[in-house]
Amino acid sequence: MVSRAKDFEARLGRAEEQLRLLQSVSRFMVREMSLSDILSGINKLIVDFMKCDSCLIYLIDGDQLVLCSSNKSPGVLGTIRLKMSEGLTGWVARERRLLSISSEAYRDKRFKRFSALPEDTFEAFLSAPIVARGRVVGVINVQHKNPHQHSGAEMELLTTVGEQIGTVLLLARVEPSAVEAANHVELLFPSPAGNR
Amino acid sequence: MVSRAKDFEARLGRAEEQLRLLQSVSRFMVREMSLSDILSGINKLIVDFMKCDSCLIYLIDGDQLVLCSSNKSPGVLGTIRLKMSEGLTGWVARERRLLSISSEAYRDKRFKRFSALPEDTFEAFLSAPIVARGRVVGVINVQHKNPHQHSGAEMELLTTVGEQIGTVLLLARVEPSAVEAANHVELLFPSPAGNR
Repeated sequence: MVSRAKDFEARLGRAEEQLRLLQSVSRFMVREMSLSDILSGINKLIVDFMKCDSCLIYLIDGDQLVLCSSNKSPGVLGTIRLKMSEGLTGWVARERRLLSISSEAYRDKRFKRFSALPEDTFEAFLSAPIVARGRVVGVINVQHKNPHQHSGAEMELLTTVGEQIGTVLLLARVEPSAVEAANHVELLFPSPAGNR
Repeated sequence: MVSRAKDFEARLGRAEEQLRLLQSVSRFMVREMSLSDILSGINKLIVDFMKCDSCLIYLIDGDQLVLCSSNKSPGVLGTIRLKMSEGLTGWVARERRLLSISSEAYRDKRFKRFSALPEDTFEAFLSAPIVARGRVVGVINVQHKNPHQHSGAEMELLTTVGEQIGTVLLLARVEPSAVEAANHVELLFPSPAGNR
């Protein structure tokens, strides 16, 4: 009975951590923050929650994926580019599917080595597409140096964070004037011309 | 010990429900859905989670709040208008604060009666601002016919859903072309003219 209580308590703690993470990301979205600061903030939340060694966020530029956020190597941001046909990351973008590899990710035949990234030697790899309006607009990767079996909760969470980042990218394109003194009701019930 | 396990189990179930709700709302955001369908979907999720008798969503139109979503009376949508200075709902919009009243909400001096809404006789009232880019753009109200003590989790959740709805309103203003073949990297690292 003690162990049952302990088990529920541990799972409760984990669920509450997940809730805090999703609520924190939601809070980023409504603040006036730069896209760069939001991505860094999300990256840090993911690293804290997943206890992972690396979190990389790639965004799409035409037919390429560009590294735009890293918990480790800010110097390489914007310079590392992948073709959509390349690597595990490219596979996730093309297939629009979550990918979980618990060990020896570097042995996967879809793997591609970049000499610039220490992450290339890491064992465990979890990757989710970043999606906006039904389209893949990037990929988020979580890596552990040592083998790590990803839990269902971790997979669910990264999927949702991938959606949230997609939303953040769309929001970055909304003009500030869209909120100031805007009529939000009109989005639902278009008023006849001159009827205001 | 049995009761401790039961207590943790109940709290775990509740936390998992909250997670599912936030993940469901996130999923709405990345789909190609009309704003009206998204608001209805969120309304239904809130009613299921809160076991409440009413969920009303008001959006701002200039200096007024307009009822835009109801779990009960679709006929009155777009027609019920409140001044920002009126009622509990107006108070939440002005103060940008969560409001929780566990019983006799109709006796609160900030209350305003609408003959059209049966909700005016309900006991418990929980209300959160809908926020986008740091501005109040609406209010979401949850009401129980009978007295109901709102839990911290319910308050947290409605706060986050208020932020998510704010984000949904902004997304509704993004042109479809913003996603199609867009360069999302440029949002972070503006490229020199002609360098593509």
